[in-house]
Amino acid sequence: MSKRLAFPVLTQFVSSTAGRNMTTAAYVAVTVGVAMMTLLTVAPAYDAAAHWIDALLWVCLAYFVFEWLVRLRHMGRQGRFWFYAFSGAGLVDAIGALAVPVALLCGAEPKSAWLLAILWALKVVPGIPGLRQLRRVLVQESGPLISVLVIFLMVVFLASVAEYLLERDVQPQTFGSVPAALWWAVVTLTTTGYGDVVPITLFGRVVAALVMIAGLGVFGLWTGILATGFAAETRRDNFLKTWETVSKVPFFATLGPAAIADVTQMLRTIDLPPRTMIIRKDTSGDCMYFVAAGEVAVDLPGRKVKLGEGAFFGEMALLGNTKRAASVTTTKVSRLLVLDLVDFRLLMARHPDLAETIDAEAKRRELENQ
Amino acid sequence: MSKRLAFPVLTQFVSSTAGRNMTTAAYVAVTVGVAMMTLLTVAPAYDAAAHWIDALLWVCLAYFVFEWLVRLRHMGRQGRFWFYAFSGAGLVDAIGALAVPVALLCGAEPKSAWLLAILWALKVVPGIPGLRQLRRVLVQESGPLISVLVIFLMVVFLASVAEYLLERDVQPQTFGSVPAALWWAVVTLTTTGYGDVVPITLFGRVVAALVMIAGLGVFGLWTGILATGFAAETRRDNFLKTWETVSKVPFFATLGPAAIADVTQMLRTIDLPPRTMIIRKDTSGDCMYFVAAGEVAVDLPGRKVKLGEGAFFGEMALLGNTKRAASVTTTKVSRLLVLDLVDFRLLMARHPDLAETIDAEAKRRELENQ
Amino acid sequence: MSKRLAFPVLTQFVSSTAGRNMTTAAYVAVTVGVAMMTLLTVAPAYDAAAHWIDALLWVCLAYFVFEWLVRLRHMGRQGRFWFYAFSGAGLVDAIGALAVPVALLCGAEPKSAWLLAILWALKVVPGIPGLRQLRRVLVQESGPLISVLVIFLMVVFLASVAEYLLERDVQPQTFGSVPAALWWAVVTLTTTGYGDVVPITLFGRVVAALVMIAGLGVFGLWTGILATGFAAETRRDNFLKTWETVSKVPFFATLGPAAIADVTQMLRTIDLPPRTMIIRKDTSGDCMYFVAAGEVAVDLPGRKVKLGEGAFFGEMALLGNTKRAASVTTTKVSRLLVLDLVDFRLLMARHPDLAETIDAEAKRRELENQ
Amino acid sequence: MSKRLAFPVLTQFVSSTAGRNMTTAAYVAVTVGVAMMTLLTVAPAYDAAAHWIDALLWVCLAYFVFEWLVRLRHMGRQGRFWFYAFSGAGLVDAIGALAVPVALLCGAEPKSAWLLAILWALKVVPGIPGLRQLRRVLVQESGPLISVLVIFLMVVFLASVAEYLLERDVQPQTFGSVPAALWWAVVTLTTTGYGDVVPITLFGRVVAALVMIAGLGVFGLWTGILATGFAAETRRDNFLKTWETVSKVPFFATLGPAAIADVTQMLRTIDLPPRTMIIRKDTSGDCMYFVAAGEVAVDLPGRKVKLGEGAFFGEMALLGNTKRAASVTTTKVSRLLVLDLVDFRLLMARHPDLAETIDAEAKRRELENQ
Repeated sequence: MSKRLAFPVLTQFVSSTAGRNMTTAAYVAVTVGVAMMTLLTVAPAYDAAAHWIDALLWVCLAYFVFEWLVRLRHMGRQGRFWFYAFSGAGLVDAIGALAVPVALLCGAEPKSAWLLAILWALKVVPGIPGLRQLRRVLVQESGPLISVLVIFLMVVFLASVAEYLLERDVQPQTFGSVPAALWWAVVTLTTTGYGDVVPITLFGRVVAALVMIAGLGVFGLWTGILATGFAAETRRDNFLKTWETVSKVPFFATLGPAAIADVTQMLRTIDLPPRTMIIRKDTSGDCMYFVAAGEVAVDLPGRKVKLGEGAFFGEMALLGNTKRAASVTTTKVSRLLVLDLVDFRLLMARHPDLAETIDAEAKRRELENQ
Repeated sequence: MSKRLAFPVLTQFVSSTAGRNMTTAAYVAVTVGVAMMTLLTVAPAYDAAAHWIDALLWVCLAYFVFEWLVRLRHMGRQGRFWFYAFSGAGLVDAIGALAVPVALLCGAEPKSAWLLAILWALKVVPGIPGLRQLRRVLVQESGPLISVLVIFLMVVFLASVAEYLLERDVQPQTFGSVPAALWWAVVTLTTTGYGDVVPITLFGRVVAALVMIAGLGVFGLWTGILATGFAAETRRDNFLKTWETVSKVPFFATLGPAAIADVTQMLRTIDLPPRTMIIRKDTSGDCMYFVAAGEVAVDLPGRKVKLGEGAFFGEMALLGNTKRAASVTTTKVSRLLVLDLVDFRLLMARHPDLAETIDAEAKRRELENQ
Repeated sequence: MSKRLAFPVLTQFVSSTAGRNMTTAAYVAVTVGVAMMTLLTVAPAYDAAAHWIDALLWVCLAYFVFEWLVRLRHMGRQGRFWFYAFSGAGLVDAIGALAVPVALLCGAEPKSAWLLAILWALKVVPGIPGLRQLRRVLVQESGPLISVLVIFLMVVFLASVAEYLLERDVQPQTFGSVPAALWWAVVTLTTTGYGDVVPITLFGRVVAALVMIAGLGVFGLWTGILATGFAAETRRDNFLKTWETVSKVPFFATLGPAAIADVTQMLRTIDLPPRTMIIRKDTSGDCMYFVAAGEVAVDLPGRKVKLGEGAFFGEMALLGNTKRAASVTTTKVSRLLVLDLVDFRLLMARHPDLAETIDAEAKRRELENQ
Repeated sequence: MSKRLAFPVLTQFVSSTAGRNMTTAAYVAVTVGVAMMTLLTVAPAYDAAAHWIDALLWVCLAYFVFEWLVRLRHMGRQGRFWFYAFSGAGLVDAIGALAVPVALLCGAEPKSAWLLAILWALKVVPGIPGLRQLRRVLVQESGPLISVLVIFLMVVFLASVAEYLLERDVQPQTFGSVPAALWWAVVTLTTTGYGDVVPITLFGRVVAALVMIAGLGVFGLWTGILATGFAAETRRDNFLKTWETVSKVPFFATLGPAAIADVTQMLRTIDLPPRTMIIRKDTSGDCMYFVAAGEVAVDLPGRKVKLGEGAFFGEMALLGNTKRAASVTTTKVSRLLVLDLVDFRLLMARHPDLAETIDAEAKRRELENQ
């Protein structure tokens, strides 16, 4: 009876989350699952609580299977069945749901089969913040990065052949073949240095020293490339963010991108310490402000209004009304974008349609304020 | 008698320092305390000078307890008792004062209890220069940093499970469980490479090689992100510094931030080698200068006046008096901020209130010079 | 018979590729060759398939010899025989072709002689993407990089002499001579840390700790320098790329570099999300666009035209015809370069010859559109 | 007799070089000296060629003593005796000359005394290229760098105390005291990882893992800071270099720094591929060029004139004569600084004295060309 009831409820719950990549429940399941899988391999722990560990693993597995099926149904109803089934997320869900059972059915030894539970960790990937940014950087800088990788491989191969020549007679057991020397080369060039394979001849050590220094170089290049990529990516993001801030402003929204880009470029970024007065009431204003970061407080008669990221104020100044209606003060370290009346007029000269939009806005507000 | 006297003196001394985070005395106490705690664990050293070590430890502890109490009283008087008690600094002081005694009272073995003296080191934290800057960078870049960390963890988990599968039969004692393999993975991915756990099978080594190369990648991403963050942070700081330099100038002080930002942006930064003549006496001047870094010497009749960071000169040029009154020369490699008459006029056009301020200033100075 | 036929065909094939640095065939040969050379040194593998390995090695060698000869002939016909023979590529080809045979003729033990096959890997170098960029960075930053290297060497020498003094009596077998200590110093300063040579005296470890921290410093400097170099290099590349995009535009092509540089600097870069409408049909246009990255779609009556990197559109606006003929939308995240009518007129004022070019262009297009 | 002659000659030679930091002779002496000192400690090598090694060491020593004395005399004559004696270079020379003899006189065992020969390496320091730049970066970024160092030390101390607590009972021989644990912490946090001291308890390994990850962080911060510093430093250097290029131009030389900064900022940097025609003969010119990097060829009737870094051309255009007298082409990838007529006029408006200078220049050249 309760089962009959529970099912739709659960279904309801899961499909409600079908949109999002990860639910808290899923995070919990992944964490518990991986933890249990880990304990499974620790003899004492397993002997102590075999039942619990197995139970929890089965529960997690059940959850993932269930989640996958519900999502399939959910997407099926929306006619996006195949789209989802073969999307990244869909495949990850499928693997999470099927890997272990399939392995068990194939008659794999349970302890080994359950190790596939590690694949559940993949479900976390889409949830990682700023992952897209990382990917873009890697894509943009792929050229230099690959060339560094090729250089890395060439150094590894040349070095390992050299060491093989120099050390094979002295240490046949460790440098007895090029693959063995390759292992040494990778361990050394990445400056990991296990110390399980170490050259002992004079020239062998000279080569090794060169490889280590080359290791520093590879590190440096790699990082240099990525650092540059990030800087560019960040600038780009900032531009797009400013862009969005601007396009949020009602009477810029209607403009074409060229005009918005104009505005974006005419904006002066100013960083202000907290408790700095930006606008003094009844003074003559000549610019409007957008809050890019931080927060400001407008003290209207009687109450204080807080404006956060994306908000704008002082726009009346651009509409001809140059007397400030209220004082505005920063409450945190804030980054403001300032648009000067001068630049604004220049802007109107370039984009006549802007003028009309603004007259309309001006009229609308006058009516409001009456 | 002397005790009666000593107490108020000490109190006086400590409370005088209650404002600052760290006094020289405290630095000494921390250094001595940690050093003694270290010696405490060195059998020969302790056997040789047990009394001294114990004595010094007790003295340090006494100092910290005393400091804490005095500060509590001091803050109490200012009615900020609870504020301080639960502020970061307050808690650190409390821990420094109470950790060891509490441990001793709980009947912990003295040698272990005194190890808590390491917590005294925390008192140094607030005194670290540029720590705020570090924190801001970490906060701003937290997104990408966390995603790198997640990637790091996923690589660690996937790699360790793979190694466990590949190596468990060959080296049951080292790769006998996933946690053991995890230890290997962390040691390898961070390129630390102790060498206590090393894969020996062919595929195990291939996986290890991939992990090491991934290690380079993680390094690179991490550094790239932080480098970008620092660059942004530094630009921001520079703007704020220029801003302050400008707002120090009497007749800019009264302007609103928009105008000051204007000035800040109109300033041209110029870097000059030492012994360069910036202004030649009696030539016609058309700009004023701010000293952003380094030092300049104004040779007035009879004496040389040195102007350091934050100072400004040549402002008379902006007040209509274009004949330079004195020669000015750099004494070190200096960074100057130049404000041109032209830009300045433009500025006045934008900010009419500036004009008045300046006329006033001009009059004031004329009177002075009479 | 077939041989008679095969030869010219092969020759044909190879000489057709004489221009390019690497052919797919060559890549295959290099990969196979290096792989076989590696297997050659693995006793079991070699015992199992000696004939195959030897055969494949000989085939690869034959290919390289053949390639070299054909190229020599090919270049000889073009009278660039010696130029090629002593060019980088030519020498690499020569080494690839001669190293092993010469070694064999000199009576080197075959297994050792074949190790020279690793030199075939050098043939890949010219094919590495972005290698030129890497080299330029290294050249430009050579100054600081060398100084870091010198510092590195000095630290290594000073540290090793210090360790030798401190450790020689305690560990004569590992720190028995300065060269031995040098080995330790390099292993430590690069933070490789094999652990085969480790100081055990108190002061020895203090010195070692300092060396490791210095290691961090060297890393940091190295990377910092390279990161800066890359940033500069990238900016430079971007300018040149924009430059090329611009000079591709018919009626800019005829301008001198100064004018093109002008244009390049007047262009505003804007980054747009996908599916953003850039131009709305029949609205009044006031700027032209270049596609720097991404893709846009022009929907002409009946069909959609995709414009990729390097393309430009909306140029009619600069030719007086301000009504947009078609709507244009981004299809991917795109970077556009915008040239405003205003700036464009300014440009014409500076470069009168531009005006004529454009009138001509305008006339030409009008005729077309009729 | 010959000695009598040799002495003044030698003196002559050395004092001629007293100005420079390092002579080729000195480089040779340092290299040989350090090499011999190294061999001295290699038993077999020393047994084989004791006489040679000793002899060469004595020769080097003699050279340095001699050099020092001659420089002292040389400086003494110029009355800069004490200045030199206590300058960095002077002290390094003194140490190089006296360290070993003093050690020998103090009755130190020769093999140990000669180890001080390593100090000769210090003589190389002033000769390192770009060392000043490195130092400036370190000075400017000292704030954040120190804070990272302090964080580093705190992590080291906290971690080592934690490990001591966790491991002392299990591995008394390696983690038996906090100093021992400190050694482990430094080896781990710098990701050197010798593997001589490794935690084996579960919690010990967890702490160790955290320390290693913190190690990545320290690396990242360190590098990030230095990278930023370098970027800033490089920008600064570029400005100063452009500045110098400009101030080399005859008729800018007389301007004040403000004007030169103006020029410097009005210059547009353009990067050109080789074999690009910059100026076409008899076309109308509207700008002058400075060669910032690379090389250009002016083909005057009959001959080609190469202009390298720092040169300028096309300046006649600014002097009213707008017809180009000769074609100019780049011969390498070059970076040119362009000064437009428009900007130039603006400049003259701001700096009237510039106008006169130029009229003078114009007249001078007309006379020349007649």
